[in-house]
Amino acid sequence: MDTRVQPRDQRIVILAEGSFGILESKTATVLVRYLPENVVAVIDSVNAGKDVSEILEIGEGIPVVGSLSEALKFQPTMLAIGISPPGGKLPQAWRDVLYKAIDHNMHVMSGLHQFLSEDAELAERANRHDVVLWDARKPPSGLPVATCKANDVDATVVLTVGADCRVGKMLAGIEITHALRKAGLNAEFGPTGQNGIMVWGWGIAVDAVISDFTAGAAERIVLEGAENRDVLIVEGQGSLVHPGYSGVTLSLLHGSMPDAMIFCHQPSRKIVARYTVPLPPIDDLIQQYEMLAKPIKPAKVIGIALNCFDLTEIEALRVIEDVEEQTGLPATDVVRFGSEKLVDAIQKIHPAKR
Amino acid sequence: MDTRVQPRDQRIVILAEGSFGILESKTATVLVRYLPENVVAVIDSVNAGKDVSEILEIGEGIPVVGSLSEALKFQPTMLAIGISPPGGKLPQAWRDVLYKAIDHNMHVMSGLHQFLSEDAELAERANRHDVVLWDARKPPSGLPVATCKANDVDATVVLTVGADCRVGKMLAGIEITHALRKAGLNAEFGPTGQNGIMVWGWGIAVDAVISDFTAGAAERIVLEGAENRDVLIVEGQGSLVHPGYSGVTLSLLHGSMPDAMIFCHQPSRKIVARYTVPLPPIDDLIQQYEMLAKPIKPAKVIGIALNCFDLTEIEALRVIEDVEEQTGLPATDVVRFGSEKLVDAIQKIHPAKR
Repeated sequence: MDTRVQPRDQRIVILAEGSFGILESKTATVLVRYLPENVVAVIDSVNAGKDVSEILEIGEGIPVVGSLSEALKFQPTMLAIGISPPGGKLPQAWRDVLYKAIDHNMHVMSGLHQFLSEDAELAERANRHDVVLWDARKPPSGLPVATCKANDVDATVVLTVGADCRVGKMLAGIEITHALRKAGLNAEFGPTGQNGIMVWGWGIAVDAVISDFTAGAAERIVLEGAENRDVLIVEGQGSLVHPGYSGVTLSLLHGSMPDAMIFCHQPSRKIVARYTVPLPPIDDLIQQYEMLAKPIKPAKVIGIALNCFDLTEIEALRVIEDVEEQTGLPATDVVRFGSEKLVDAIQKIHPAKR
Repeated sequence: MDTRVQPRDQRIVILAEGSFGILESKTATVLVRYLPENVVAVIDSVNAGKDVSEILEIGEGIPVVGSLSEALKFQPTMLAIGISPPGGKLPQAWRDVLYKAIDHNMHVMSGLHQFLSEDAELAERANRHDVVLWDARKPPSGLPVATCKANDVDATVVLTVGADCRVGKMLAGIEITHALRKAGLNAEFGPTGQNGIMVWGWGIAVDAVISDFTAGAAERIVLEGAENRDVLIVEGQGSLVHPGYSGVTLSLLHGSMPDAMIFCHQPSRKIVARYTVPLPPIDDLIQQYEMLAKPIKPAKVIGIALNCFDLTEIEALRVIEDVEEQTGLPATDVVRFGSEKLVDAIQKIHPAKR
């Protein structure tokens, strides 16, 4: 990554035209959650005039505006593409917005499959204005086939795994990392997807890596992220039962060689999102992860992060209790009830490794 | 694929300099086995003057020569790169041979990770001589995220899975396809790796596909290969316990949605090749494949293909008997003892689907 575009140093405008607050704007939501000091405005003409907190329940004080022109008064230095269209392509309609942002000397941050930096017209324009087109999804070159070197690091490595996409593996990873730091541990987070990379400033989008080298990418993340750390929390992707992405999930498990796993789930989710595949019971899923980890490096699921955003507090507490009883593992909703239980579980295994 | 380079229409010289007959020349061996009518010579100065059959026990009548110049007398129309260097890169020393081949109006067929067609110098030269640089590993553009459409085909789909790389998944697939045809079924083989693609003339090298779309590539192979067929045998890749390639393996399983699996193994293999990972018992491995198939589409292992090339006939027969007893499944070495048992197993489930 070009050090000029570390998101924590930018004044960011998020492009979420027509989609802010809905499922397709996950990137926008994540940026608001984890870079609230940096996000100066969100572009979405549908919600223009509102405060971000009226839509997301976070991001109080950040305005939604109708256009980039309106956002310019906040002196932005970066435009972030905040939504992920199916297929990952840049809609033709957004090009004018990007041109305008570049003409106003803003960097552009994107997590699209289609790399902005490889678009001749955008690249030429960015070059002329000396700004960076940062494709968070673009993998580094020279990734290896995995070699099992991730097993050699001193840090305790914990992988967040899950029942499906979009159940909170990245969010659990970041929240646990923050909580470990609060508890006095030298913890790092290893992002493996574009959203985590955007908010955390480093990582590799493993789903954009050629499949022969995907486990090698996970290994690289561990070797880099574990250096001089007590604990590394690696962001998981997908699920072992996801028809499209299960291979990415298994590559991450075998490439990162974790010492333990945190299982993430959204209790209200009964089928794989966008498919008709029913989700197996939590116990079965946990057993699958442990069974597949075992031949390469045994690792247990030591805690459960439940995403209860769509449940009442009473419902959430009940489901957490049920899952704890069913699995015998500590469970929590890290956003609602904090990560302490999971920090305790990690601390229990951490000294054992060292 | 450019229809001008269908390998069955070519007079092929295989480049296997310094490596013919050893593990790194798997491509050369496969071409000799399945395109014996097309291979006119093998280049390897170390073995020059020998007959191919002195080295491989197949390919009688095909000469090994010391250089491309010597091979020209056989009027070749295609040079095939027959060895896979670690990392997949084109060694500098081979460039001169490729230039010479192109200058003699030969097409070039390659399974290297580094695509010849994207090499400016080679591409320019090939263009000038109106020959094709065919990168068997280069995936088509526009592959989708898997959608579970592979479940809709009428053909019975069988995936060859295995304990490790290089245990005979491609070979079993091709042998079974031939045997099914002999038995009167309209069978097709779906290649998923460069060697299978080279000998069979179509397919997608799934390990060269970006990991988000690897299961989608498997789905594409099934949709194309199953059309108007009774049975499609899909070539498996890697293994669920392979530290580097397990993700490719699982993508294939979930993307191709087989009705049944054939488990392939080399009984003498005790650890994952090139790693220190011990191979679990066959039963455990079979259980893993069935367990992972189940949530997306249940499929059983219905037969076992054992690669006993390094055992005596008596040892081979004994190990086949042992494995049949241990698993309760029909087992054979398809090269040594034929594929009939596996054809029977497939025929048993085939009418059930239709």
